[in-house]
Amino acid sequence: MPYRAPISDYRFLFDHIVNLKQVTTTETFAEATPDVVDAILTEAGRMCEEVLAPLQRAGDLHPATLENGVVRSSPGFSDGYRAIAEGGWVAIAASPDHGGMGLPMAVTTAVNEMMASACLSLQLNPLMTQGQIEALEHHASDAIKALYLPKLITGEWAGTMNLTEPQAGSDVGALRSKAEPNGDGSYAISGQKIFISWGDNDFTENVCHLVLARLPGAVEGTKGISLFLVPKYLPDANGAPGKANDLRVVSLEHKMGLHGSPTAVMEYSGATGWLVGPEHGGMKCMFTMMNNARLGVGGQGIGVAEGAYQHALAYATDRKQGKPPAKGTSGAIVDHADVRRMLATMKAEIFAARAIALSCGVAIDMAKATGEGEWAARAALLTPITKAFGTDTGISVSDMGVQVHGGMGFIEETGAAQYSRDVRVTAIYEGTNGIQSMDLVARKMMDGGEAAFGLLDEIEAETEAAKARLPDLAMPVWNAAETLREAVEWLVAQGDMSTRFAGAVPFLRAFARVLGAHFHLRAAMADPDGARARLARFYILRLLPEHQGLLVHARAGAEDLYAVSADDLAA
Amino acid sequence: MPYRAPISDYRFLFDHIVNLKQVTTTETFAEATPDVVDAILTEAGRMCEEVLAPLQRAGDLHPATLENGVVRSSPGFSDGYRAIAEGGWVAIAASPDHGGMGLPMAVTTAVNEMMASACLSLQLNPLMTQGQIEALEHHASDAIKALYLPKLITGEWAGTMNLTEPQAGSDVGALRSKAEPNGDGSYAISGQKIFISWGDNDFTENVCHLVLARLPGAVEGTKGISLFLVPKYLPDANGAPGKANDLRVVSLEHKMGLHGSPTAVMEYSGATGWLVGPEHGGMKCMFTMMNNARLGVGGQGIGVAEGAYQHALAYATDRKQGKPPAKGTSGAIVDHADVRRMLATMKAEIFAARAIALSCGVAIDMAKATGEGEWAARAALLTPITKAFGTDTGISVSDMGVQVHGGMGFIEETGAAQYSRDVRVTAIYEGTNGIQSMDLVARKMMDGGEAAFGLLDEIEAETEAAKARLPDLAMPVWNAAETLREAVEWLVAQGDMSTRFAGAVPFLRAFARVLGAHFHLRAAMADPDGARARLARFYILRLLPEHQGLLVHARAGAEDLYAVSADDLAA
Repeated sequence: MPYRAPISDYRFLFDHIVNLKQVTTTETFAEATPDVVDAILTEAGRMCEEVLAPLQRAGDLHPATLENGVVRSSPGFSDGYRAIAEGGWVAIAASPDHGGMGLPMAVTTAVNEMMASACLSLQLNPLMTQGQIEALEHHASDAIKALYLPKLITGEWAGTMNLTEPQAGSDVGALRSKAEPNGDGSYAISGQKIFISWGDNDFTENVCHLVLARLPGAVEGTKGISLFLVPKYLPDANGAPGKANDLRVVSLEHKMGLHGSPTAVMEYSGATGWLVGPEHGGMKCMFTMMNNARLGVGGQGIGVAEGAYQHALAYATDRKQGKPPAKGTSGAIVDHADVRRMLATMKAEIFAARAIALSCGVAIDMAKATGEGEWAARAALLTPITKAFGTDTGISVSDMGVQVHGGMGFIEETGAAQYSRDVRVTAIYEGTNGIQSMDLVARKMMDGGEAAFGLLDEIEAETEAAKARLPDLAMPVWNAAETLREAVEWLVAQGDMSTRFAGAVPFLRAFARVLGAHFHLRAAMADPDGARARLARFYILRLLPEHQGLLVHARAGAEDLYAVSADDLAA
Repeated sequence: MPYRAPISDYRFLFDHIVNLKQVTTTETFAEATPDVVDAILTEAGRMCEEVLAPLQRAGDLHPATLENGVVRSSPGFSDGYRAIAEGGWVAIAASPDHGGMGLPMAVTTAVNEMMASACLSLQLNPLMTQGQIEALEHHASDAIKALYLPKLITGEWAGTMNLTEPQAGSDVGALRSKAEPNGDGSYAISGQKIFISWGDNDFTENVCHLVLARLPGAVEGTKGISLFLVPKYLPDANGAPGKANDLRVVSLEHKMGLHGSPTAVMEYSGATGWLVGPEHGGMKCMFTMMNNARLGVGGQGIGVAEGAYQHALAYATDRKQGKPPAKGTSGAIVDHADVRRMLATMKAEIFAARAIALSCGVAIDMAKATGEGEWAARAALLTPITKAFGTDTGISVSDMGVQVHGGMGFIEETGAAQYSRDVRVTAIYEGTNGIQSMDLVARKMMDGGEAAFGLLDEIEAETEAAKARLPDLAMPVWNAAETLREAVEWLVAQGDMSTRFAGAVPFLRAFARVLGAHFHLRAAMADPDGARARLARFYILRLLPEHQGLLVHARAGAEDLYAVSADDLAA
């Protein structure tokens, strides 16, 4: 059951849904001509199909291990990584100043997604490096940039992010790792970090850790945190990996999935590191990078959903059970109504989530190219939605994939269960989906809802225009947008954050539902007699109505919620 | 994080929600006095807490294995099984004629659920035996009953069900196993069966297989299937296990979860078996048993949900992150709005699913005790809802349990992930939840909706009566019941089954939502100033509204669904 890169979907989305052209006609992204984008998709797609997809099961069956303090990656991962690095796929968005291709984030998002479909555990490695590259591009000194960026961009070196400590998870501000000045411009970093994805590997020359720690005398909380670059091997005078730094992998976690990705407990024992960004400015540096990392993780969810969908569709097309349910249908289970419903749901959800992610990518690109605050605000608004809805879609679609397989879905050899186990963590890491939702209803509404209203204005205007041609699809989308608008109005009027937080998760999901309907309607307008319109109809008439119940929940407030006390829960 | 049997919940449900008294005051169940029921719950609960719960992780970490054709169960399972058997918990509902206690199915449901919370993989063993006992009680000859039932009821012997073959899953009628008469009243059974839960074990003297096979000359499809009892060891003249039968475990599956339960491929090579029920009447015999087995599997889902909930609540009460979000709250994450939302959802869903399951048990008991067709129809209606909603709740609640744990949820040592992996199969086996939904909208509506309307009449009458006292809860429930009634009316008017099947899954879920709201409202009326009313409020105002979108989906019909063609799906 081979993976097939959904190139035609990306092309359709770029051309008709997210308007990539507005990005590629800016000066910043002028290199990204249609031919270049097409070549990128085709070549990356081929690498994913031929090199990465065959590694998917190996990563699950033969987890990365720790042997005498050294990580041994899963069989074939070393070659797979080499293909990624040599193809230039580690960081196609990185700045040309240091060897990057400077391509749009929208295109990066598609490439990352394909790699995630093919082999999520390995894809996580370059995704981490991408985040590090971005942080260094924005905040590191020129010397650090010159030394590290070329190595990271080629993939010769890999990057990690070290935030979490046992007592500091969602509450990053509680971290205790320390950084003491060495007097020579470097710092001695000490502390234990947990949940470090790809904390080490056996296929790059060096591993560069971005570590959050506290300088002496730093205030408590997030305002006393600084960011440090701490390489596994200290670069020598020529910039080559030299002396081993004072850090080590203590252990690897046994996880529900993503076995091919070593999740490390890291110990820093006075390791040498260099400050990135200002003293006590670590959180801000992390946030720069986190937005794009969140888009990347949303893309992981979508990628896994695509893999799980293809897997389930192949099975459903092949597997025969019962009588053909209607004229012109075969006995394959794809023709049974409930299986068709599941597969159509999976495909429609993937389209919606992918459109949201790519539109987020476009907003990031436009913000970079134009410097316009509206684009930045659009990107900021769409980021938590992309992350949470993309990963929730990964979870729900891969779960449906298991169900389509029936009993075979529960058998590991089938491969369906692995998608479900692997993708589960994407709703947790890089800020849990609860945190994403809180970000949406609080921080992203600090503008009084301006960004949200702007988006809803666009949706309603476009929907209005679609009414003449596709009234039975346009009307429900318009109504849903209006219901969402009322919810946003209610939300921004709530001064007590608990009231917003109490319905944050259903609110985010409803927002995604409406966005998905908007993009499906756009697809139907572009292809009114084709498959895209039929899928849009399925989504708008069957899945969109979920927004009603979600928005009732979203507006129910905190009082009734807290009325169910901790004692009640334990009763 | 020890499991605590939710005895007080069962008591409340028995007393105030499902009216167990109407069962225990019938002649049939007169033995089940309040004291007896209480003692049963307490003793079974203690056994689950003390003996079974400690086996949960061992079953996951040390799966059952096949060694030289013999199944070796997980460490401790043998002792655990002995505690179940010696406590008399294998089959408390079995008829006293053969040593059973003849207790109500509602009480059995509670006991089964507790065992499922504590150790799902081991609980599946007696659950299978219960199904076999029921099939034999209804359909076996007196000789077979006398020989097998006492051994099965004490748990000295275990029972399995053998339906599935590689080409015959949901389409049982496609099975090919054969039964040739031996001329002495016995039959020679040949064929391969797959997905046989507990196909063998190392802690009972014998394993008795109920096997579906075809007699010579049988017609194709389900009407040509007969049921046979095929023991691992043929009973000798004294009824003791004698000569080994011609059957073997070929292999065990590697599964996503439920590792402690060996799932076997069974090979029958002319094994000696005896007909149970009439020739070619195997499917009917299976259906007798299947209804209760489906209730049992629904209870598995609820049991796992309870275990996952307790696990998550303990973590959330202990784990501190961030500032206390409001006055009077601690820094524990249980006080953060979104975590509170998840835990309240989990608890409210468990209550709803458990009330539905126990009311299904009561309907089965009342049908047995009174012989009234209305009770039988009620039981038949509630069975697929109990199975699908119970197991979906198991899946969604254990998934939320993972999320409550944050990063720790993805780490296997935490135990949260195991609930999620183990319970996944319950939505698949014993008829997938898609099959349950099709059963609900087709077979269970062959009465023109009479049973459904009868139930909705009761709900609306009770809701009407509640309006004076709890108007803000009663009104939404009444409205939801009315919306559901309209959907039932629409459904029974659809002659084309594809039209019904196209929305069967959302229809079933909406039905469960309304039932859950009905039972929550009843709980609020019984405890208007207490924790139950606060939880009811949470459910009715936040979760019930989901029914609207679901019923729109349920009524969307088959045309648009099939418009998304198999080619569209592959495009």
